[in-house]
Amino acid sequence: MSARVVALSGGVGGAKLVHGLSLAVPASALTVIVNTGDDFEHLGLHISPDIDSVVYALAGLADAQRGWGRAEESWQFMHALKGLGGAHWFQLGDRDLAMHVERTQRLAQGRTLSEVTAQLCAALGIGVRVLPMSDDAVRTQVRSDSGWLDFQDYFVRQQCRPAVRELRFAGAASARAQPEVLAALRSPELRAIVLCPSNPFVSLEPILAVPGIRAAIMGASAPVIAVTPIIGGQAVKGPAAKMMAELGLEVSAGAVARRYQGLVDVFVLDSSDAMPAEIARMRLVQARTLMKNTDDRLQLAHSVLALANGSRRRGHAETRR
Amino acid sequence: MSARVVALSGGVGGAKLVHGLSLAVPASALTVIVNTGDDFEHLGLHISPDIDSVVYALAGLADAQRGWGRAEESWQFMHALKGLGGAHWFQLGDRDLAMHVERTQRLAQGRTLSEVTAQLCAALGIGVRVLPMSDDAVRTQVRSDSGWLDFQDYFVRQQCRPAVRELRFAGAASARAQPEVLAALRSPELRAIVLCPSNPFVSLEPILAVPGIRAAIMGASAPVIAVTPIIGGQAVKGPAAKMMAELGLEVSAGAVARRYQGLVDVFVLDSSDAMPAEIARMRLVQARTLMKNTDDRLQLAHSVLALANGSRRRGHAETRR
Repeated sequence: MSARVVALSGGVGGAKLVHGLSLAVPASALTVIVNTGDDFEHLGLHISPDIDSVVYALAGLADAQRGWGRAEESWQFMHALKGLGGAHWFQLGDRDLAMHVERTQRLAQGRTLSEVTAQLCAALGIGVRVLPMSDDAVRTQVRSDSGWLDFQDYFVRQQCRPAVRELRFAGAASARAQPEVLAALRSPELRAIVLCPSNPFVSLEPILAVPGIRAAIMGASAPVIAVTPIIGGQAVKGPAAKMMAELGLEVSAGAVARRYQGLVDVFVLDSSDAMPAEIARMRLVQARTLMKNTDDRLQLAHSVLALANGSRRRGHAETRR
Repeated sequence: MSARVVALSGGVGGAKLVHGLSLAVPASALTVIVNTGDDFEHLGLHISPDIDSVVYALAGLADAQRGWGRAEESWQFMHALKGLGGAHWFQLGDRDLAMHVERTQRLAQGRTLSEVTAQLCAALGIGVRVLPMSDDAVRTQVRSDSGWLDFQDYFVRQQCRPAVRELRFAGAASARAQPEVLAALRSPELRAIVLCPSNPFVSLEPILAVPGIRAAIMGASAPVIAVTPIIGGQAVKGPAAKMMAELGLEVSAGAVARRYQGLVDVFVLDSSDAMPAEIARMRLVQARTLMKNTDDRLQLAHSVLALANGSRRRGHAETRR
């Protein structure tokens, strides 16, 4: 059970499965590649929302009720900032703020985002390796009917109201994949690559847009298993379903699966959803995918790892144990 | 009563008298020149402790018990920062942090410290004009037996424990006085220049070290009145008395007065202190100088303004009303 697992994750949904995986395998066996396409500069601070979601989930600091940020959070800073006429459309909790201030300071001292993330994880006692997809800036932007919007402008300030017509990942073409990311995907000890139940368009595809990462996944020795972010035609959280409709896609787990065709060996849809039509070179399976508590996370992680053990790379005959 | 008043202030003690003056004259008639020698960069933030003390006092946001920072403060940020392995020797409250983040961001956008201070004062409804002594960096440093220390290292991290042998204000020689500072001191409508009860060595002398400011005070048309920071041989707050002893000075209000000889027309010592020996060209008067509440602040302000009305510039015959 010590063979390595690599998970690709966006924000909150992905972070839940990452947490489950961290309970299912030794910390040293798990590497998480995290989307940085929704990173941004705000109030002079470098904010990495998806890294923070993963880190807080792994450190046991995530707020379960709110669904983002830190537990036992307070909002005195935001309150004072409003009083000073500061920009207050992006909520920054008092505890959460420590992460942004500390990260920003360390980046300003010349460290890479990878180095800073590793340091902060170590301080929080996280043994899992959390890697930004790249140390270069990649910025997700969405085209609405009124033009291109920075992701957080769309996502937070405009609360996903604009219809999304197109997406782009500014900087991706020239971004260098974080070296450990590629090494982890190429490891001969790899047991599984897991695409977490994150938004395909703004969480996982920015990762796949970084040159070398998609190819490394395609060339990996281990099976690639994706978990649906869509259950019953709805996103568990966030704008994935709304985006699919706006982009002219069917809003279903099957449509997500088809989007991953050629990349993913096993697609896990929720047991409450009907099995979609067959997809060439992809195994479609059902499992309980809704993660309401830690047990759900661990159970889904075990399901995913069992599927990895029972699968071969695309096109190959499956082995069943 | 609409003639102008200029006050020179350091931190908490000075801010109290500034607050008193703001209650005694119209806001538009009061200009405060604030020490920035103890400004520093910390956690990537530009922190201006004395400006903040003055601003919080004028905005009614200062914490009366603690003696620094904001009232109703919380410390979740500091707690989280410790958890991340961040530098936690300088206490930053959650509300206070908004000031530093907002200031830093605006400075990074290219505004001067004066502009940012004016904006933040406006947001807080402060009508008094609060001016940094200079928009250029001046940094107070103290020489201890183990070498030169940055001021906040000495003042906060080492809690004023090292004996002070010498002081210097790095950058002062080439700093340009904030233009409105000089204009305010040269105003023909000036009624009084008040040296607040701040530490002479690290609060007022950095202001006086900025080229042009001392000369503008010397050349001003209005009397210069200083209020003692030493009562009964002790500083009301802070290391002034300890510093005087370490610098080989007598620890007394009289010694402070002698330090201001040639600059100050009227020196106000506390009514509990014995009148020192005469000082040429300086009038020595007693008043209640300890400010425990708002009434005390207002009463001392009225005393100072009355002394201004009853005094002429150095060497001239006094008029009494």
